[in-house]
Amino acid sequence: MNAPELPAPLTSRLLDSVNHPDDLKILRREQLPQLAQELRDEIVRVCSVGGLHLASSLGATDLIVALHYVLNSPRDRILFDVGHQAYAHKMLTGRREQMATVKKEGGLSGFTKVSESEHDAITVGHASTSLANALGMAMARDALGQDYHVAAVIGDGSLTGGMALAALNTIGDKQRKMLIILNDNEMSISENVGAMNKFMRGLQVQKWFQEGEGAGKKAMQAVSRPLANFMSRAKSSTRHFFDPASVNPFATMGVRYVGPVDGHNVQELVWLLERLVELDGPTILHVVTKKGKGLSYAEADPIYWHGPGKFDPETGDFVPSNAYSWSNAFGDAMTELARLDPRTFVITPAMREGSGLVGYSRAHPNRYLDVGIAEEVAVTAAAGMALQGLRPVVAIYSTFLQRAYDQVLHDVAIENLGVTFAIDRAGIVGADGATHNGVFDLSYLRSIPGVRIGLPRDASELRGMLKYAQEHSGPFAIRYPRGNTARVPEGTWPALQWGTWERLKDGDDVVILAGGKALDYALKAAGDLGGVGVVNARFVKPLDDAMLRGVAGTARAIITVEDNTVVGGFGSAVLEALNTWGLHTPVRVLGIPDEFQDHATVESVHARSGIDAQAIRTVLAELGVDVPLGV
Amino acid sequence: MNAPELPAPLTSRLLDSVNHPDDLKILRREQLPQLAQELRDEIVRVCSVGGLHLASSLGATDLIVALHYVLNSPRDRILFDVGHQAYAHKMLTGRREQMATVKKEGGLSGFTKVSESEHDAITVGHASTSLANALGMAMARDALGQDYHVAAVIGDGSLTGGMALAALNTIGDKQRKMLIILNDNEMSISENVGAMNKFMRGLQVQKWFQEGEGAGKKAMQAVSRPLANFMSRAKSSTRHFFDPASVNPFATMGVRYVGPVDGHNVQELVWLLERLVELDGPTILHVVTKKGKGLSYAEADPIYWHGPGKFDPETGDFVPSNAYSWSNAFGDAMTELARLDPRTFVITPAMREGSGLVGYSRAHPNRYLDVGIAEEVAVTAAAGMALQGLRPVVAIYSTFLQRAYDQVLHDVAIENLGVTFAIDRAGIVGADGATHNGVFDLSYLRSIPGVRIGLPRDASELRGMLKYAQEHSGPFAIRYPRGNTARVPEGTWPALQWGTWERLKDGDDVVILAGGKALDYALKAAGDLGGVGVVNARFVKPLDDAMLRGVAGTARAIITVEDNTVVGGFGSAVLEALNTWGLHTPVRVLGIPDEFQDHATVESVHARSGIDAQAIRTVLAELGVDVPLGV
Repeated sequence: MNAPELPAPLTSRLLDSVNHPDDLKILRREQLPQLAQELRDEIVRVCSVGGLHLASSLGATDLIVALHYVLNSPRDRILFDVGHQAYAHKMLTGRREQMATVKKEGGLSGFTKVSESEHDAITVGHASTSLANALGMAMARDALGQDYHVAAVIGDGSLTGGMALAALNTIGDKQRKMLIILNDNEMSISENVGAMNKFMRGLQVQKWFQEGEGAGKKAMQAVSRPLANFMSRAKSSTRHFFDPASVNPFATMGVRYVGPVDGHNVQELVWLLERLVELDGPTILHVVTKKGKGLSYAEADPIYWHGPGKFDPETGDFVPSNAYSWSNAFGDAMTELARLDPRTFVITPAMREGSGLVGYSRAHPNRYLDVGIAEEVAVTAAAGMALQGLRPVVAIYSTFLQRAYDQVLHDVAIENLGVTFAIDRAGIVGADGATHNGVFDLSYLRSIPGVRIGLPRDASELRGMLKYAQEHSGPFAIRYPRGNTARVPEGTWPALQWGTWERLKDGDDVVILAGGKALDYALKAAGDLGGVGVVNARFVKPLDDAMLRGVAGTARAIITVEDNTVVGGFGSAVLEALNTWGLHTPVRVLGIPDEFQDHATVESVHARSGIDAQAIRTVLAELGVDVPLGV
Repeated sequence: MNAPELPAPLTSRLLDSVNHPDDLKILRREQLPQLAQELRDEIVRVCSVGGLHLASSLGATDLIVALHYVLNSPRDRILFDVGHQAYAHKMLTGRREQMATVKKEGGLSGFTKVSESEHDAITVGHASTSLANALGMAMARDALGQDYHVAAVIGDGSLTGGMALAALNTIGDKQRKMLIILNDNEMSISENVGAMNKFMRGLQVQKWFQEGEGAGKKAMQAVSRPLANFMSRAKSSTRHFFDPASVNPFATMGVRYVGPVDGHNVQELVWLLERLVELDGPTILHVVTKKGKGLSYAEADPIYWHGPGKFDPETGDFVPSNAYSWSNAFGDAMTELARLDPRTFVITPAMREGSGLVGYSRAHPNRYLDVGIAEEVAVTAAAGMALQGLRPVVAIYSTFLQRAYDQVLHDVAIENLGVTFAIDRAGIVGADGATHNGVFDLSYLRSIPGVRIGLPRDASELRGMLKYAQEHSGPFAIRYPRGNTARVPEGTWPALQWGTWERLKDGDDVVILAGGKALDYALKAAGDLGGVGVVNARFVKPLDDAMLRGVAGTARAIITVEDNTVVGGFGSAVLEALNTWGLHTPVRVLGIPDEFQDHATVESVHARSGIDAQAIRTVLAELGVDVPLGV
């Protein structure tokens, strides 16, 4: 667990008496703002160790207090889209004292997780799923003749994801009783993009609950009367009462729209929720919140404070990172490439910062597209670009490319289009856990005809692969891990020997084949052991058939190492090839076991998966290599 | 090619002079209705052999004539969503004389296909991709400083797919010049569902171009003046001019809305399109069409006539099929199961008829959900249901489950939820070709931890697996092919020995392992050959380790046969297992090669892939089995 030292908490708080939502209900509603403030203070304290979701958790706290005050979890189901904003929810549902363990091995998840608490309605990490989940729950409730509330909290960024919009289409149709809280903070991780966003900004102009002393109360009174009237006509067919001018897409979709309201006025939220949960059919409550609420420095720069590093909770001081990440290496390479080639174009699904594209987006704004949280659109728009003469690069995390598997296959691969996939966060990502590990891409991409897969070992090889991709057609997936790499000088464009591996250490007795991050482990494990060869297997598709045949023909055993599931990945590719050739060289396939890997450090998961240097040494010893003890 | 005998075409048609869109432009616009009628007659003639997309092609013909009259393909890009409605487009772009070869081996594709014609802007078959493709094309055009039109034709069913809605979000934001034709025939393959559909019906009430003699002209004049005024204020910021009351989600999304207009008045469509293509930014033209237009029996029952069997073009007479399909077997089993278990629930993404669910949907309307063309929503709604106590079954074609890969992994598998995937059309589907073959599911599902995969050999085993799935938790994918199977009596519920294979033919020299459709080939190939064993490998995950170890320990060679890609599929699973156990029994992996398979009969693709009985016999002979010649 390794819970870090935290500043001591304040004493005599309301919060200390709340270990279950039932405890919350004993409080007077006038006390709720204080409780919310205590939760926020605690969130800042917990997050000051770095690496946690600060800004969105602060923004959602008032709303979460109100929801737990009105609803009865776990009987009522409260779903949090993405689940990263739910720290206050965790604290109100018996997990306050474990908060220092969030994202740490054996500790709490950074997201909601069904197996962690009966109060966590869904296990989640990817965006835009909550509405479909909530629809399913409401239909299950009705099919089984049960009676509980279903409430989904979804951010404005997540709402523009395709599956959220498509779910809304069915929710409006089926008219099941459910509450959707649109938690509108005008942000996803970056600024939001897209037409829906502009529209939501338009709604905000009309908002009723103005900020400032007294205004809220006054607006509340103005709303109370019509709402009361509305309630008295309960189950009325007048569905769009609260819809300003009855003009918005939610109303169009058949979902009652209420809002926008101030998402930081807990008492007003309680008052509204108490009434809204009684309505039949689906209702959207549009709540306006501020990312980083209550923390001046976080409100001022919510993009940095979305998931900041370690900081001083009092001052917001932090040590800026000088690390050069794989993402930076990718972004820098693309910025240069776009200067060399007018056909270069980069697409991101709402991950400008995470993918290292801030500099690129400024340098080449006309050849940059952020499609919002819509990986499917990113890939298929790239297909359209490739058909019309561009060389698009889709910058995407491995775990999110899963969302666009069919688009890679159907829209890109069938016509062998020149789309490059720059797959960041490939392999184990560590703290974000099972929902975010990028350990399936080698398997699911390898089975798609024509998709080539490269694993650069460093920034130089990454640049070589990206340049090659700009100059040649056909789909090319380039995967690299979360973490840092050494910076290389501008203008570094090593020629890529297409489809070839590289022998980095001679040795014919046992040969280790590994690419990308796994190669580092292989080199460390091999050290200067005699007879142990190491090959940079930088292509998983195509394999370097000539080198593999050579190795298989001479070595006593082969070890494959990959930061990917052992099912259908690189090791399987080697087994398939050897089997086709009728070669029976023993192969030890090291990779991530066929189980979901919970959060922990990357190093820890690699160690327990048996792919780190120590694990490789153990296998070498099992194969009879004379490995010095204790190394 | 085997082009069937067709009735002789009419003589002296306008159509005979049109072999390229340029030929079309020589016609006077008064001649266009006649041309459209000739195209429709030809479509009926061509489709009367059965198995083609009749009703939607008839409905889109007037629109296609108008588009090709106004736009200049291939310079201008005309995209057809799904691409199954584009027969008129094929005929107008030089492929009229090949129409008898549609969907036949070596002939034309049933969809649009880039490699088939320079006039086919996209290669397609799955729904809802055209808007993202068009967005990419418009951005490519602008990035390269070019100047051409981009027009996407999308049906009302496809428009409710998540990626289409998400694309609209970015299209509205980026404001690139493009035309979206909403081809609204109130249908997908079945009746449309969803709130967007209700909304579109609302728009239709307000439609300007009323049907009936003279009404169109009159309406046209009424529209002409404001449209002319509008044009005179070209590039005006008044974006929603044609938007009735400025209330619709397209306008909300920042996309100019025009319509609804009569999609069968070619001259009016030409007049409108000539003006709309000159407008900057994105425009949606809402066109109302009739599926089966002009063919009384098809208009009356467009669901049957979506893709009818062989029929008499004059009378519409056809021989009803008495075949009992795998889909029927599934639907019947579910109808019975739902009577036995109140937790049973079936979800379809717009495939009620294709998945054999007409009877189920009538028998159990409260435990049936059609989410429209939104596979992601189908899977995640099922996850929500499973979390709340139901036993949901997602009925889905293999090729369309690709759309929900991440939802299977992230929403179902991580929490090991009891969702059953009834995967229809698994393996080669034949006539629909590369976009529709279900030959990747074993590979992409096998690499997801915890997903079990079964391949029933017949309706009885299918029922056993479905019953098991209702009684046990955890994700279970049951895959079965396109085609027919023997009907079994109601109440047939064979007990399933979980995770076990079944030895169907003894023989220890060479053992063939195969499940599902491939098993039929294996049995036929083995016949009564001595020494050749056949195992019903009905589970691909988990494998029957005990039986596989036994086989590998005694057999001289193993043959695996699968109707799935050879990359990462069943054969690879066997190789992985043997390698883990250190067994080196030679394995011949037979499956679909690592290339996309074009349309042809299922049998033909299986033969050329080397998995049919003849191919297996050849391999047996290569392995030294004494195979009688000519069998």
